[in-house]
Amino acid sequence: MQNEKTANLEHQRHTLAHLLGAAVMELYPDAKLTLGPAVDDGFYYDIKFAGSVGAEELASIENKMRELLPTWTTVTHQELSKDEALEYFKGNEFKAELINEIAERGETITLYTMGSFTDLCRGGHIDDLSTIDIDSFKLDRIAGAYWRGKETNPMLTRIYGLAFETKADLEHYEWQQEEGRKRDHRKLGRELKLFTLSDLVGAGLPLFQPNGMIIRKELEEYLWSLHKRKGYDRVWTPHLAKESLYVTSGHAGHYMDDMFSVHGGTSKEDFYLKPMNCPHHMQIFADNQFSYRDMPVRYFEPATVYRDEKTGQLGGLTRVRSITQDDGHLFCRPEQIGPEFAAIVGIIKEFYTTMGMMDGYWVRLSLRGDDHSKYLGSDEVWQTAEKALTDICEEQNLPYVPAKDEAAFYGPKLDFMFKDAIGREWQLATVQCDFNLPERFDLSYINEQGEKERPVVIHRAISGSLERFMGVMIEHFAGAFPVWLAPVQVAILPVGEKFAAYGEKVKQALDDANIRVTLSTDESLGKRIRQAKTEKIPYQIVIGEKEQTSDTLTVEGRNDLKLENISVQDFIIRITEEIKNRSL
Amino acid sequence: MQNEKTANLEHQRHTLAHLLGAAVMELYPDAKLTLGPAVDDGFYYDIKFAGSVGAEELASIENKMRELLPTWTTVTHQELSKDEALEYFKGNEFKAELINEIAERGETITLYTMGSFTDLCRGGHIDDLSTIDIDSFKLDRIAGAYWRGKETNPMLTRIYGLAFETKADLEHYEWQQEEGRKRDHRKLGRELKLFTLSDLVGAGLPLFQPNGMIIRKELEEYLWSLHKRKGYDRVWTPHLAKESLYVTSGHAGHYMDDMFSVHGGTSKEDFYLKPMNCPHHMQIFADNQFSYRDMPVRYFEPATVYRDEKTGQLGGLTRVRSITQDDGHLFCRPEQIGPEFAAIVGIIKEFYTTMGMMDGYWVRLSLRGDDHSKYLGSDEVWQTAEKALTDICEEQNLPYVPAKDEAAFYGPKLDFMFKDAIGREWQLATVQCDFNLPERFDLSYINEQGEKERPVVIHRAISGSLERFMGVMIEHFAGAFPVWLAPVQVAILPVGEKFAAYGEKVKQALDDANIRVTLSTDESLGKRIRQAKTEKIPYQIVIGEKEQTSDTLTVEGRNDLKLENISVQDFIIRITEEIKNRSL
Repeated sequence: MQNEKTANLEHQRHTLAHLLGAAVMELYPDAKLTLGPAVDDGFYYDIKFAGSVGAEELASIENKMRELLPTWTTVTHQELSKDEALEYFKGNEFKAELINEIAERGETITLYTMGSFTDLCRGGHIDDLSTIDIDSFKLDRIAGAYWRGKETNPMLTRIYGLAFETKADLEHYEWQQEEGRKRDHRKLGRELKLFTLSDLVGAGLPLFQPNGMIIRKELEEYLWSLHKRKGYDRVWTPHLAKESLYVTSGHAGHYMDDMFSVHGGTSKEDFYLKPMNCPHHMQIFADNQFSYRDMPVRYFEPATVYRDEKTGQLGGLTRVRSITQDDGHLFCRPEQIGPEFAAIVGIIKEFYTTMGMMDGYWVRLSLRGDDHSKYLGSDEVWQTAEKALTDICEEQNLPYVPAKDEAAFYGPKLDFMFKDAIGREWQLATVQCDFNLPERFDLSYINEQGEKERPVVIHRAISGSLERFMGVMIEHFAGAFPVWLAPVQVAILPVGEKFAAYGEKVKQALDDANIRVTLSTDESLGKRIRQAKTEKIPYQIVIGEKEQTSDTLTVEGRNDLKLENISVQDFIIRITEEIKNRSL
Repeated sequence: MQNEKTANLEHQRHTLAHLLGAAVMELYPDAKLTLGPAVDDGFYYDIKFAGSVGAEELASIENKMRELLPTWTTVTHQELSKDEALEYFKGNEFKAELINEIAERGETITLYTMGSFTDLCRGGHIDDLSTIDIDSFKLDRIAGAYWRGKETNPMLTRIYGLAFETKADLEHYEWQQEEGRKRDHRKLGRELKLFTLSDLVGAGLPLFQPNGMIIRKELEEYLWSLHKRKGYDRVWTPHLAKESLYVTSGHAGHYMDDMFSVHGGTSKEDFYLKPMNCPHHMQIFADNQFSYRDMPVRYFEPATVYRDEKTGQLGGLTRVRSITQDDGHLFCRPEQIGPEFAAIVGIIKEFYTTMGMMDGYWVRLSLRGDDHSKYLGSDEVWQTAEKALTDICEEQNLPYVPAKDEAAFYGPKLDFMFKDAIGREWQLATVQCDFNLPERFDLSYINEQGEKERPVVIHRAISGSLERFMGVMIEHFAGAFPVWLAPVQVAILPVGEKFAAYGEKVKQALDDANIRVTLSTDESLGKRIRQAKTEKIPYQIVIGEKEQTSDTLTVEGRNDLKLENISVQDFIIRITEEIKNRSL
């Protein structure tokens, strides 16, 4: 159902791109339309205007769209020969280029007509145009774009529109965008001194400041504690390997563009930076000859891999070249796929419950398609694995969407989509079967009969990449991290120097209880309170005459929490419990 | 004094190389001598024999050496012209090559005569040959070696000798070598499944198996706990940087041969793998504008750096390309050098006391030489720093050797030499002042007057590299790690299946107390006990009728320790205490 709704919205957006084209042609008859697709939050059209057109003209174009829409009562289409189509779009060299390409591919050339507007189009519109809510779309912004994205091509004008099912959805989206900008992790990352981007180091290679490192380490340790409990072992692998490792794994064939090559200075030897940990983990397994009694074997390694991306696509923590995966691989017998997937799903649920992200999450179950020849591994192992994954989805009552034909060639998988505090969806956790790598690395364990048997590999990542996940978390919490993640957990603010000694005593007690605490006396109290709020420190303790005399604390927390006359010991018990439980 | 003794021994070894040459010429008059220097444990001579000479001939050569030595009563030398020297060594093309080179450099050609043997030599012998103990040296082994190490040159025969001050020293060294072979960390690393070397990954890039990772992680966490207590913060930096970072740091000039270059796939951008963390840490500091109130600023990052070495020089964990330093940098005011060095020396002492390596350790204090123009930084800051370091050595009663002229151009330092369980010396910890990097990165903090001031950087490493340190530790402990480091701390061995349930109960209790424990019932008891001993598991608990009935344990430990009728709880208290204290 989720998918059907999505398809309908995409058709609507596509139709609105046509409407935008029609409005432009009404207002600017000399303009040349080029391409106008649907996108994730609406649509756009790239247009060659005769003169210059700016943002101030968007309102009149949008009005024209609203004016035209009621006149669009039907959608019709016709097939044309190449010559007919070229004749129809005479004078528009962009459409001519598209028509020639369609013809070259041997495809049918179709024109779609709505109202009095006809455009070159392969179809994909909604049938009943009257269902489009006139307030569910709006023109958003204008930008320059090269024809087909190529810098040597002519510059066009791109007009973006937003479009959703309903006006409420549109408004929600706009609120989300505005709220997202306020929470932008790049902005908060600077303000809260979480990470640093350095021109000398390079784009997409963030450096973690002490504050950011506290969050990163807490997340990593929490993830490890969840895995340790399920019988995982830590391993460590270097960041380099020779090409031969990737020839064996098969990555050398189709993954090279994303990989960084490495060349020795003295040795002149060639290597690659690892773009994933799997091949290394295969080598750790292969150096043992395990027996069936040792299975499953489970490795965990939060390791940084490196993938190349164009500089222009990099930003903050969410698009980086240094990607620290909470990675792990397990090696099991086919009948162990079920219990092991269940254990991982358990870890995922616990982790995202702690993060407060379980509202509205859903799971995609990617299965193989009908053409079994496209897939590696026996029918038997595929059936076992797909049944195990489906059973887990059912037993654990996961809100799952089976996606036939979406499995990788090497095995079925589960992908988890979670929504952040402002409702934006992120694909984060993943669990995948792999019938390919054990073959390529000729892995085996000894079965009960003393014979070699091939294990199944399971890839799993809970947070995905720690960098991206931290980017998401900074925005999810808007920088106001739960106490266990907060770089500074308590700010002690004596009203003046006179109470600094008592403040120091309280600080020492909190330090001894492993609570992250700061004490400051060097500015006015008002300024220090504001500073603590800017830094989003969960608890502020203002210390004055009353507190010192009664040897108690007055504590202010988030959501107007106020604790008065609380003893230092009671506060420590309270906050320690909160940290231990990783309370939200 | 240490240095004087070393120089004397080196002269003695050099003299013995001549003696070896003389003995060879007596026995093989057709042989041609080439080069014969002193080395770390003795001497060697590279010789072109007319026929083939093997290990079985070493005894007779050694006998001839002992026969000749008493006849060597004086050492004399003479200067020759190039032509005279060439005439003297006529027929020996190797000596001719050396003579021509000496003449070309404009140096004096000298011949040294002892007994009836004369050799081309620049000198450096002991004056009184009668002090050489006839039993303090021996011929050790024979090997092939290319003339001057070049593969295209003729192959020579290299005869190695061992030589020490006394017979006892020689015997101790031979025992040490033999004991070292038994403890070889490469052999133990395989047996105890600590790490893996993979041809597919590459030489010098060890992968850590779960067992090795436990040790690595315990060491890393211990090191972090020592630093956390002294006010250090964790940071994280990527493994890559652009060349511009190393141009700024100055490494680009003279360090490039040791560095791995990195090239983007899609982006085509160029980077280097970091060969050290300092330049990255400078960027983390520089992204803040600290005030004098924030100083010192202390960063800690156990990070893997990559340095290229020739494949032939790589081996096990002690010569690797992936080097994980327990790295850290601190930024301080000149007057803070003293207290900060003192804190680091405190960490070093605590760490190496825990490791049982404080017997016979010593410290080299590297100071600047007389020509102050060779050094960077003001006279004032050098004087402050050198005084601070000397004061610490005195106050903390360190066995230190001042080494004038040994400081780096950028600052003075302390290097720590520790001896392992069989007396081999390893240079491990280091603390260095750096007046250069703060200049190159234009670092500053704001002083009391609101002006920018330049901080001093202190580099420090406690274990050096975790890989090399683990290699040393494996041999130091001969694989029998103290309980806190042991991958498996307790083996539970029920005498038979009948007692498996009680074994399981004990295991659960130990698991819950975070003790690393295995339980096995699948082989004969004798075999399982032998296995536990091979794996050097510190404690073995054999469970039978008596233990099950009385709900107690019989525990066997190292050094014939036996605990009988001990309750599970009491054993947990005992072992937990041992782990917490990191007892040896």
